[in-house]
Amino acid sequence: MNIPSIIERKRDGKTLTEPEIKSLIDGFTTGDIPDYQMSALAMAIYFNGMDRDETTSLTRAMLASGDTLSHPNKGSRSVVDKHSTGGIGDKVSLILAPLLACDSELIIPMISGRGLGITGGTLDKLESIPGFNVNLSKKQALAQIDAIGVVMMGQTTDIAPADRKLYALRDVTATVASQSLIVASIMSKKLAESLDKLVLDVKFGSGAFMQTLADAHSLGESMQDVGEMMGVRTQVVYNPMNEPLGHTVGNALEVTEAIAALRGEGPEDLVNITLDLALQVSRKKRDQLNGWLTDGSAYQKFLEIVESQGACPEDIERFSDLHAPKVSKDLHSPASGEILSINAATAGKVSLQLGAGRTRAEDTIDFSVGLSNIRKIGENINAGDPLLTIHASDNDSANAAGEELLSAIRIE
Amino acid sequence: MNIPSIIERKRDGKTLTEPEIKSLIDGFTTGDIPDYQMSALAMAIYFNGMDRDETTSLTRAMLASGDTLSHPNKGSRSVVDKHSTGGIGDKVSLILAPLLACDSELIIPMISGRGLGITGGTLDKLESIPGFNVNLSKKQALAQIDAIGVVMMGQTTDIAPADRKLYALRDVTATVASQSLIVASIMSKKLAESLDKLVLDVKFGSGAFMQTLADAHSLGESMQDVGEMMGVRTQVVYNPMNEPLGHTVGNALEVTEAIAALRGEGPEDLVNITLDLALQVSRKKRDQLNGWLTDGSAYQKFLEIVESQGACPEDIERFSDLHAPKVSKDLHSPASGEILSINAATAGKVSLQLGAGRTRAEDTIDFSVGLSNIRKIGENINAGDPLLTIHASDNDSANAAGEELLSAIRIE
Repeated sequence: MNIPSIIERKRDGKTLTEPEIKSLIDGFTTGDIPDYQMSALAMAIYFNGMDRDETTSLTRAMLASGDTLSHPNKGSRSVVDKHSTGGIGDKVSLILAPLLACDSELIIPMISGRGLGITGGTLDKLESIPGFNVNLSKKQALAQIDAIGVVMMGQTTDIAPADRKLYALRDVTATVASQSLIVASIMSKKLAESLDKLVLDVKFGSGAFMQTLADAHSLGESMQDVGEMMGVRTQVVYNPMNEPLGHTVGNALEVTEAIAALRGEGPEDLVNITLDLALQVSRKKRDQLNGWLTDGSAYQKFLEIVESQGACPEDIERFSDLHAPKVSKDLHSPASGEILSINAATAGKVSLQLGAGRTRAEDTIDFSVGLSNIRKIGENINAGDPLLTIHASDNDSANAAGEELLSAIRIE
Repeated sequence: MNIPSIIERKRDGKTLTEPEIKSLIDGFTTGDIPDYQMSALAMAIYFNGMDRDETTSLTRAMLASGDTLSHPNKGSRSVVDKHSTGGIGDKVSLILAPLLACDSELIIPMISGRGLGITGGTLDKLESIPGFNVNLSKKQALAQIDAIGVVMMGQTTDIAPADRKLYALRDVTATVASQSLIVASIMSKKLAESLDKLVLDVKFGSGAFMQTLADAHSLGESMQDVGEMMGVRTQVVYNPMNEPLGHTVGNALEVTEAIAALRGEGPEDLVNITLDLALQVSRKKRDQLNGWLTDGSAYQKFLEIVESQGACPEDIERFSDLHAPKVSKDLHSPASGEILSINAATAGKVSLQLGAGRTRAEDTIDFSVGLSNIRKIGENINAGDPLLTIHASDNDSANAAGEELLSAIRIE
């Protein structure tokens, strides 16, 4: 295969065939195709894109580069999962996985990622639970699914190694922000779960990767196309991400809020979005699903997951005491009136700067820091009342966070 | 320096600064910047281009990555050279260098390249002269310039190593055809000759890299801009390349024709273009220059070059006997009328297939094969008269060449 001529065709806006794409990915995975050709191709794809068939071929090739989770004992149950394109304060997965596991018709082999930039990651949040092991082998994962119907874990090194290698290359060659490459990266990992149904939570707005609903539609439809072409019932839900979801941003703070939601005490926006997504993959009614949140079933299922993955259920009962931040300060409203905006991107950025996130993959995370008691858009507030609480590792960073946040909140 | 963010800025159509470009090229030359980042950047440059300042900065950085030919004993003489963007049957350099060396006001440190694809190379043609050494050291080159005012040689490994490394990378990543990168590559090597004046022979038409005059203007003006910004008087001459230049294509065949021209017996188109280019860098009149062709001065200077670079002047006297092709066949005109077209690209391609050129840099060349006695557009011809003579290594390749050529010649 003449690699330069394939790069040239994509450079000139031509379409690549399935066998070409498969050979490219296979050769790249084995090292026969060097990084410098793949990065030039990725840049050509950035400029000229890939159509639906090409994106599906790329997804299939990356999926086939590694192992999949097959579910030998699934019986008549459906294998389902959710993927979110990433939001601020988005702790939906922590609630959704145990909630769906209350439905005996479902298997939920949830493979999640870590936080990067202003977006948090489910694995980091789970690891704020002492002893919680997200690094399960395929064998461990299948055994747990067999026992309790659900697992919450990271990508094993056997899953989509081509994607891992390509993502690392894109990260250092300014080729991350290509829709086709994003879609293939997400879908190759999700489809490795051998799903029957997938629901996609595509965010749009100031705190999302996609700023406009039109862009979100483009991304969502592309992921849906690939999912459907590969035989997975794929639904898309579009959700605005202009203010943080729920009242918290930051790892342990979000786990605390998720635990509350699992006990039927979650904030309205967080519970609603969780139920909306659950309804796309479960055949149960909304009342039934909400009942599992309020009657303790979902919470019990979460404790089963916690115990099965090496942590102590007792720690969940007293979770909010485990990660006491060094400094906690209320941010007071400078004016009276209606809250018009609490910028989600700024909340994410401040939380990152406080130490709750990573700017680089190798950074470590402070589980205790972040924001809580965040008021919602549309609420009325009096001057001097708390807008939110800042949790920090020292006074200086708390004060800096407060200043930055004030510039991102509008009250009229 | 954050390389991904520099790639990202070029990807997004922004302008890079001179210090950024210098750091990129320095880091790439030392290996601190890996190939995969440089190839992604080259593809971004392919799509978004570089402006005049960026292209000049890139040229300067690549020039500064290596050594230059400085001329300590040049006195009041001007250091001059020509560069051609490549044509079919273009043996102008073989005539121009000794011709200009007849002008005692000039120094001609001509560094040339090898043939690739349908375009021939001056170094290959010179090497069809037994013993001719094009691989001179800087010291040898300067000594010869001191003695006879002219040298015809290849690029030493010390000249523009960044360009050599970048060109090798572009060759395998479909990023050769970027005007900014082409300009910087050509000019960094030419400017390493420490020139005072440079004339550029930019070809356009079916047998040229640039198909239209507009494209040729764009390339020529960009090279002129860079030359002038770096302090070299740079003139551009635009020449059509629709039929082969002169009557021959192929290494030894072209040297034979060049020798004839050096003795005042060259074909009109070849002599005219040589004089046109010479007039851009010499202060002598056309008659004077033409006189050096007809009075034997240029031929004598060529013999001096030949002798100084290790070959025998006697071989030049009997040169056409040195490379007798195995098979020589006339191609007969199928019709009577005026010759409307002899496609230069086809003549180049046939010559390449006969063995006169390279499809890959490591291919070897058959000096004896090619085309001669090529008739010119506008001439009248009778059916059955020879259109040209094919020189080949066997009958089959001669016949295949004849068939392909007939399809490229139009007679009305």
